[in-house]
Amino acid sequence: MQLFSNAGIAVMDAESGGYGLIGRGALVVEDGRIVWVGDAAGLPDGYRHLTQHDLEGRLITPGLIDCHTHIVFGGDRAREFEMRLEGAGYEEIARAGGGILSSVRATREATEDALLTQSLPRVDALLAEGVTTLEIKSGYGLDIETELKMLRVARRIGQIRKVSVRTTWLAAHALPPEYKDDRASYIRDVVIAGMDRAHAEGLIDAVDGFCEGIAFSRNEMAAIFDHAATLGLPVKLHAEQLSDLGGAAMAAQHGAISADHLEYLGPDGISAMAASGTVAVLLPGAFYTLRETKLPPMQALRDAQVPMALATDCNPGTSPLTSILLTMNMGATLFRMTPAECLTGVTRHAATALGLADRGQIRPGMRADLAIWNVTHPAELTYRIGFNPLHARIIGGELV
Amino acid sequence: MQLFSNAGIAVMDAESGGYGLIGRGALVVEDGRIVWVGDAAGLPDGYRHLTQHDLEGRLITPGLIDCHTHIVFGGDRAREFEMRLEGAGYEEIARAGGGILSSVRATREATEDALLTQSLPRVDALLAEGVTTLEIKSGYGLDIETELKMLRVARRIGQIRKVSVRTTWLAAHALPPEYKDDRASYIRDVVIAGMDRAHAEGLIDAVDGFCEGIAFSRNEMAAIFDHAATLGLPVKLHAEQLSDLGGAAMAAQHGAISADHLEYLGPDGISAMAASGTVAVLLPGAFYTLRETKLPPMQALRDAQVPMALATDCNPGTSPLTSILLTMNMGATLFRMTPAECLTGVTRHAATALGLADRGQIRPGMRADLAIWNVTHPAELTYRIGFNPLHARIIGGELV
Ligand SMILES: [Zn+2]
Ligand SMILES: [Zn+2]
Repeated sequence: MQLFSNAGIAVMDAESGGYGLIGRGALVVEDGRIVWVGDAAGLPDGYRHLTQHDLEGRLITPGLIDCHTHIVFGGDRAREFEMRLEGAGYEEIARAGGGILSSVRATREATEDALLTQSLPRVDALLAEGVTTLEIKSGYGLDIETELKMLRVARRIGQIRKVSVRTTWLAAHALPPEYKDDRASYIRDVVIAGMDRAHAEGLIDAVDGFCEGIAFSRNEMAAIFDHAATLGLPVKLHAEQLSDLGGAAMAAQHGAISADHLEYLGPDGISAMAASGTVAVLLPGAFYTLRETKLPPMQALRDAQVPMALATDCNPGTSPLTSILLTMNMGATLFRMTPAECLTGVTRHAATALGLADRGQIRPGMRADLAIWNVTHPAELTYRIGFNPLHARIIGGELV
Repeated sequence: MQLFSNAGIAVMDAESGGYGLIGRGALVVEDGRIVWVGDAAGLPDGYRHLTQHDLEGRLITPGLIDCHTHIVFGGDRAREFEMRLEGAGYEEIARAGGGILSSVRATREATEDALLTQSLPRVDALLAEGVTTLEIKSGYGLDIETELKMLRVARRIGQIRKVSVRTTWLAAHALPPEYKDDRASYIRDVVIAGMDRAHAEGLIDAVDGFCEGIAFSRNEMAAIFDHAATLGLPVKLHAEQLSDLGGAAMAAQHGAISADHLEYLGPDGISAMAASGTVAVLLPGAFYTLRETKLPPMQALRDAQVPMALATDCNPGTSPLTSILLTMNMGATLFRMTPAECLTGVTRHAATALGLADRGQIRPGMRADLAIWNVTHPAELTYRIGFNPLHARIIGGELV
């Protein structure tokens, strides 16, 4: 058993709806779980003999959760970014081999080891900021073998780094050129057949898709979700990022654990999400990079009590972002979320967006996944830009 | 003498106007200065016997220069940031002790040592991203003793950290409440009298002011600049951030080395700056934090060949930003600067904005202030968001 004392603690409980801040707190961990948390003055006698880890007034929060990333990919798109700023148009960039298909090409060509090597520095940047749970999607393979390769890399990241990795099947990310005249075959032979294989190999924790004019329709995604249901896999959806196709409502009707992006989400989608308990995962890094001006319907989401999470959306095209703290600042600055909403969005609500009931809050029974910060007030985590006050992470009770 | 080899080198020379990229470069340093740089194949025989520092294909750039910061201050404004997002208005925040005067109060109350301790983590965040020269302004004292205290802290930072610090007298930052009915006395008794004292103590490298409706007028600033001229001190100005008061043109007429912010800069200001060689220091962190929508006149600045620098503007109110790399990304994403313009903006043009002719480029005779990066192409430095690929810094030839 371990006793952490002399710390502020933001428990992030549902009852307070916010920080649930304990000014002079103490926290007891046993076998990787929290067994007691509260004001230090109320520490039960049975724990008083434990050796104290004196945190010298630092702040403890739940370990941060990045619930939406495409962090495993080959190559980078820096030159494409540069060409666009130099005035190149879409055509010219496509001719130069840019766009999502350049990431698909580089990911297909990379060996599993190379893909791991390229992805680890990005993962490490997140861990250095207190991330203890990380979602990773496939979606740059668009063929079964490469999609499986991406997910194997994701699982290996969870083995060689101190982080819980949750994997998501996203073969329905884009239509590869070899299927451009045969969407139905791609969905049947790659998205669904690959889902079966990946599931059989234990590589999938959830199923996702990109529902948009340039990707897959609501009906196509509904069929993919129906198949996921036969395997008992939870679903989530990239929805209403560029237009309102009713994707979020369809996902909610399939019991989706989250709908993500949502800039163009309308009232029907909000009602459906509220009814199903679907989390709204907001991705300000993509909003920022695309210089989007249409905000997600923030007040309507609040009014309907739809839980809001925040994530990096780390990907090489529209959000080459590897800072969860900056994501929180962007949630506040760009989306006008309060710092308490931002921190809830990368803890309690992010856990729900991944279907995880054992983390994201600090209370007895939860995993002892924690972040310890050199700050005095939790608002500082959101307020600062490009600054990392992490002191240490604790995963399953272990200081890492 | 030292030989750095097996590296890409972005020399950032005026002739190329951009990266001046050498694919397989070598660089020779002697007594803290660059003595040779070029393609490795052309390395003169006289240097071939030197022990090689093999950089394994990494990229060398000039050390980065943050040419506009208010990084020394007391307290923080996280709770004010939070209150604003929770819906508090200006009055309520002022009643709760917020706004710039809360930073003034905390800075006045802090001992010199406390101010240093609070500022160092912010400075260290910049150094960790390859910064080798850092400008630091006074301006949260608004009385002579505190302004001098801030500048002494700035000088101490330059002594205890491996970084060149350039100090700027910014007593004309805001009018303190004790002078609110007597602007002329504040300018005479604090701004100008303090400038004399600070100059006598060797604490000032340049003089700055905030020319805005809420701060000081163009004529007030002109009088302050006239006094700076009698001391031989270069001048620069916060100008045209919120409105066009003609500050940049006035500053240019005083031979200013830079005019900073410039969202509302008009054609007259641009012509005057072009004529005087005044650098436009753009501050996207403040633009982002204030959710400003009016862009600086980017194309007109380019057309007039006004050199453009980028800086963090690190300050507790409008830009609590301590990442020069994120500043570069914001320059590209928000201001549509090319990655080459962004890198030039934190190297060659940033040096000019500080009146420094001995750094910001990699060529013989320049200081050997360098940054070594784990990237293959310089565009990656601007493209990524919240990621730090620094391998090492070199200051005056010394690996730090
Ligand atoms: Zn995504
Ligand atoms: Zn400033």
